[in-house]
Amino acid sequence: MRGVLQVREEAGRGMKHDRILLAHGGGGSLTHELIERVFAPAFGMETLEDSAVREFGGQKLAFTTDSYVVKPYFFPGGDIGKLSVCGTVNDLAVQGAQPLWLSLGMILEEGLPLADLEKIVASIKTTAAEVGVTVVTGDTKVVERGKCEGIYINTAGIGRVVTEVGCARIKPGDVVIVSGNLGEHGVAVMSQRAGISFQTSVVSDCAPLWGLVKTVLDTGAEIHAMRDPTRGGLAITVCDFASGARVGMRLEETALPVSREVRGACDLLGLDPLSIANEGKVVVVCPSADAGRVVSAMQVHPLGRNARVIGEVIEQPKGMALLRTTIGGERIIDMPTGEDLPRIC
Amino acid sequence: MRGVLQVREEAGRGMKHDRILLAHGGGGSLTHELIERVFAPAFGMETLEDSAVREFGGQKLAFTTDSYVVKPYFFPGGDIGKLSVCGTVNDLAVQGAQPLWLSLGMILEEGLPLADLEKIVASIKTTAAEVGVTVVTGDTKVVERGKCEGIYINTAGIGRVVTEVGCARIKPGDVVIVSGNLGEHGVAVMSQRAGISFQTSVVSDCAPLWGLVKTVLDTGAEIHAMRDPTRGGLAITVCDFASGARVGMRLEETALPVSREVRGACDLLGLDPLSIANEGKVVVVCPSADAGRVVSAMQVHPLGRNARVIGEVIEQPKGMALLRTTIGGERIIDMPTGEDLPRIC
Repeated sequence: MRGVLQVREEAGRGMKHDRILLAHGGGGSLTHELIERVFAPAFGMETLEDSAVREFGGQKLAFTTDSYVVKPYFFPGGDIGKLSVCGTVNDLAVQGAQPLWLSLGMILEEGLPLADLEKIVASIKTTAAEVGVTVVTGDTKVVERGKCEGIYINTAGIGRVVTEVGCARIKPGDVVIVSGNLGEHGVAVMSQRAGISFQTSVVSDCAPLWGLVKTVLDTGAEIHAMRDPTRGGLAITVCDFASGARVGMRLEETALPVSREVRGACDLLGLDPLSIANEGKVVVVCPSADAGRVVSAMQVHPLGRNARVIGEVIEQPKGMALLRTTIGGERIIDMPTGEDLPRIC
Repeated sequence: MRGVLQVREEAGRGMKHDRILLAHGGGGSLTHELIERVFAPAFGMETLEDSAVREFGGQKLAFTTDSYVVKPYFFPGGDIGKLSVCGTVNDLAVQGAQPLWLSLGMILEEGLPLADLEKIVASIKTTAAEVGVTVVTGDTKVVERGKCEGIYINTAGIGRVVTEVGCARIKPGDVVIVSGNLGEHGVAVMSQRAGISFQTSVVSDCAPLWGLVKTVLDTGAEIHAMRDPTRGGLAITVCDFASGARVGMRLEETALPVSREVRGACDLLGLDPLSIANEGKVVVVCPSADAGRVVSAMQVHPLGRNARVIGEVIEQPKGMALLRTTIGGERIIDMPTGEDLPRIC
């Protein structure tokens, strides 16, 4: 016990709760608290970038990981297999890295139908082939009935950094661009949940982004930072940019691309499209002089047809993100706590 | 459904069961069946090595992954945190690779005491520091109460290949060396299981092996293959060597180092020490001319004090492993099915 208490004093100082809550996994403020108070002190990780970048053989290598626990594991527009490839290759892509290799760790529940596993494996194979990445190493564990929900997947990915980007490069005067409509993954998954008798025609936007990102990089535009707005949505992305770069961010509500279906679903469920997960969108920050060619390049790519400038980087208030609302007012974009949408990815 | 059936015909052809069983995760013949019938056809993976080796920046990079679902997550001699570092760095080490970086994917159960998480994180930190590896990227998900057992961890690891080794190099005339006593991890974990009112003084041998492996490589001996005999124990290791190299293997029962406590526990529980998991042992195959210096080098290392030659590689029967018993007979070492010891790592 003494050992444990000592560790708590060092690592967990100031945590709001003494047990893990669902919101600790929601990607919002409680996830950040867990990272900042428990993981970062232990490992000295970079907490704000999606991948670590290291030298290997004189080249820059990007390395990232994500676990996937989405419920249900089949959802409109995708499944946990497709998601587990897209999520990880997208984390590499937004680091300016070409995805090369994936590891695949599966935790299976006793009783999982083999047909479901095979469908998921086929989905992994197809998505990996689409992005030109290969699954090179793997591991499988099985737990007793009830000890996971069918299947949990972890993928880690290695990429080769093509263009260095990062929060620290963001400057006042830059613009914020998003590649398309917001909130589709979150709403698609929610609409499939048992207990939510709610149906939409919304399908997940889950897609591998390397092709789109490469198109953007190939324009020669000066890209300062990129992020795929997954857990916690666009809200967490702009809050992270603001705090990581010590700048302000201001989004224009009228410019945000949200479909009528997603808007309707959010109104019904009391959710904010800004904080809902996307799995096939990229947010790009670049100098305003480069905005035109970035948006044009995105718009000719199938995954970026609805790309647009949605905001700008400002001097003040440092570390905060603002939304200029449709009626001309301004509100602070709060970092979501992560309680709204558990098990979304 | 049609899509699923088509996939089944391609990928799952000939699987014995249409649902996942615990034994599919036991590291034995059913795990092999799953890899060979479902994963290998999809991904064309090397199924017999612990890590994938690829070129990056003109150097050889090793990449591996493992998920850890050990029950209970604290056990005599270690915990899931220590295990999740050791398991993955050991997979790199036995590939002749110096471990460099780890990713850390955690799946936490709602309600997990923060103190337990902090103890596990501290354990990861300590073990990583011991082996000189750094955790550079991570991810945390939380699932509802009852949807995992406290914590599941995935680590993936990247290493730099120092010496190339592999099953294909194994030749008749080689000897088989093990670095110490068998079965300690499996027996330590089993003795802690709820429902098994069985106590021993056995503690897990869980330890990072890179230091020991480096000592062996530094002798300049010609190392043909290495393996850490985890799930499925020494039995699966020698079966894999035999089938991977298309040779025979013969172990000497009298030479196998098994402590009195482990032997006693195995007798009580009806288990074979040959097929019980180890987490801090390495099996080395090298030419008999090099055996002396390998064993001597191991014996001066704290993790190899009980190292010894336990068998040899023979021409026939190809693809099979044999045990010369204490009474002078010979029996086939069967690949364990994986049913005996689920959730051991």
